[in-house]
Amino acid sequence: MKAQDYPSALQGLIGQLKRMPGIGSRGAERLALWFLQQGRNESATLAHALLLANEEVGYCPDCGFFSHRGHSCSACTDPERDARQICVVEQPTDVLPIERCGLYRGLYHCLGGKISPLDGIMPEDLAVKKLIARVSERQGCEVILAVGSDVEGEATALYLRGELLPLNCRVSRLAQGMPAGAGLGHADTVTLMRALEGRQLI
Amino acid sequence: MKAQDYPSALQGLIGQLKRMPGIGSRGAERLALWFLQQGRNESATLAHALLLANEEVGYCPDCGFFSHRGHSCSACTDPERDARQICVVEQPTDVLPIERCGLYRGLYHCLGGKISPLDGIMPEDLAVKKLIARVSERQGCEVILAVGSDVEGEATALYLRGELLPLNCRVSRLAQGMPAGAGLGHADTVTLMRALEGRQLI
Repeated sequence: MKAQDYPSALQGLIGQLKRMPGIGSRGAERLALWFLQQGRNESATLAHALLLANEEVGYCPDCGFFSHRGHSCSACTDPERDARQICVVEQPTDVLPIERCGLYRGLYHCLGGKISPLDGIMPEDLAVKKLIARVSERQGCEVILAVGSDVEGEATALYLRGELLPLNCRVSRLAQGMPAGAGLGHADTVTLMRALEGRQLI
Repeated sequence: MKAQDYPSALQGLIGQLKRMPGIGSRGAERLALWFLQQGRNESATLAHALLLANEEVGYCPDCGFFSHRGHSCSACTDPERDARQICVVEQPTDVLPIERCGLYRGLYHCLGGKISPLDGIMPEDLAVKKLIARVSERQGCEVILAVGSDVEGEATALYLRGELLPLNCRVSRLAQGMPAGAGLGHADTVTLMRALEGRQLI
């Protein structure tokens, strides 16, 4: 006697859903059954969205953010943006959080990572040449380094500062200090140190 | 100036992934970016699995479990199974947990729910007629009611017992008592009551 099991197509769907990050066996089973329950339309729409996204989404040849494949992104082609500011981020996914805060109206540049010799990631593995070319075209522009404040982020910022300063531009870095809404009790030593160093007269 | 946003195909994929149960905005965004990162193959495979499952998976015309569309399920067609036992469950998804415990070697019958007048679910909304027909064909068989032990499950079991007993069959119900591995401190009053009532000499 064989143990009763799901039909192979259902097992296949569960296996495929389980490959997604953060989805375990139980979650994949629940999702697969949900799709069956929803009927053909729901599955077809997701299938279409998956294929379309893979087909159409590419990277902006200028800044490296997501864009319609083969085209520049909407920020790079927006004439209302201040082309004399370039905000440098590690990953394309870092752009939207900055956009959402609503303060910044310039361009972006996605490095594609941060310098990390231990992981074998050197400056030539990042979009640094392209950044230098863009800054050189914009005499007197401001480059805002919005990379992480971990060791690799610091190393990347230092390195970029050295490369960019000779190009007749200003280089700034995101402020470091206490996160909004946090009490002193929750701040780690390094954050507190940097908040103290960066204290401002009020 | 328009705020920078993901290309429309990526937004579409995020929106579609967000429709899945238990997946929020952040989760959907993370999944969509993961699919882009994995490349075309991953998306195509899931898209295919979704369409195939919807195409091929149906319900067994005999017992109501999942099956290859238009065919009986693997349990109903397995000659090694004991056709004189029918285990009645509420949902098709209740079958695999019983299979996994490895003790049961008979057939199944999925009701498609439980009697719940408050939700407008009456016996005629469940696969009761079909069950009566199957039991009538099997004189002297045993029907194991593996429905839930909540109020609606109890009502369903009582109703089915009344319908089935005249058919020359035995009707049993899953034992109720302490769950395995649980201390007395965690048991609710009703569970303890039923465990006491059902106590067995050892």
